[in-house]
Amino acid sequence: MQLLKEYIKKYGSVREGNVLKVDSFLNHCMDIRLFCEMGKEFFRLFGDDNITKILTVEASGIGIACIAAQYFDVPVIFAKKSESKNLDGEIYSCAVRSFTKNRVYDIRVSKKYLNEGDRVLIIDDMLAVGNALCGLIDICGQAGAAVAGAGIAIEKGFQGGGDALRRKGVRVESLAVIDSMDTDGTIVFRED
Amino acid sequence: MQLLKEYIKKYGSVREGNVLKVDSFLNHCMDIRLFCEMGKEFFRLFGDDNITKILTVEASGIGIACIAAQYFDVPVIFAKKSESKNLDGEIYSCAVRSFTKNRVYDIRVSKKYLNEGDRVLIIDDMLAVGNALCGLIDICGQAGAAVAGAGIAIEKGFQGGGDALRRKGVRVESLAVIDSMDTDGTIVFRED
Repeated sequence: MQLLKEYIKKYGSVREGNVLKVDSFLNHCMDIRLFCEMGKEFFRLFGDDNITKILTVEASGIGIACIAAQYFDVPVIFAKKSESKNLDGEIYSCAVRSFTKNRVYDIRVSKKYLNEGDRVLIIDDMLAVGNALCGLIDICGQAGAAVAGAGIAIEKGFQGGGDALRRKGVRVESLAVIDSMDTDGTIVFRED
Repeated sequence: MQLLKEYIKKYGSVREGNVLKVDSFLNHCMDIRLFCEMGKEFFRLFGDDNITKILTVEASGIGIACIAAQYFDVPVIFAKKSESKNLDGEIYSCAVRSFTKNRVYDIRVSKKYLNEGDRVLIIDDMLAVGNALCGLIDICGQAGAAVAGAGIAIEKGFQGGGDALRRKGVRVESLAVIDSMDTDGTIVFRED
């Protein structure tokens, strides 16, 4: 998606440890005009797939998922990362290792909101090694729900998570795939 | 807001410890049609206030804030609750006690995204004793930004946080204010 690539080139920066900082428009300060264009693009890609639910994980995926959901006219469920009084009863859960935070946490979804009849579009802001996405797919499996695919804003292709899932048959559609990047500012995108 | 009150009556439930469960439409599974109506209502209330940024805190506030931001055509900043590689550099922070999770955490906003020229609308899903909202107001104060007001989906009026802030001169607009509720299912709304 050309617009997103332009944002990454213009406003993104590369830090040590394979960190791509896009917090000025994607995951801290959120550019809602861009989010609307991303939402429309996800709908162009998955609009014919009879999606019944959009699934994401807190926190950075929620905004993109909610904006996209308007075009699909379906609810959004966000997997929670910690226990709270708001999430009691029967849950699906899966352990996930965070790349950015370097720790393992559980993601949880109430059994009430995901079930066999669902066709799920998973949406997230970033895909690197793919741990969060694998966790969300695992939760859909526990629910017996079909995964129609994953819509990702930025995939760090060189970390392999997206291609590993594609080899397993998961439809992963990333709006910008970065094949290489360097702290000197070089960012090379995969051809569409 | 009549539609939100109907959702609370129909789908909400009251649990021990002043917990209102609204996770079927507000803060786990998110009803995006409802969110759009709430966003329009926030724009009706604050649309003439020259808002430049919407500020919320992860995670449950993000969806409502992003949907509302479309009507205001401004970016959304979400305060982060924990340290990560994505939030380096200079930050504003404030310690907040969570009512639902019963612990103290820091909320953090990068200094890059909030400053003196801003007029901020704070949006959140729930207001009880008001700790998160006070923390967000404190962060705006650190930035020298003006707080135009707070747009809240559900205020638990009997816990006093909203009225305490109104007495201090903060414009708090809650789409549904609950004056009392009981585990037998009774929910009494404040008159508009």
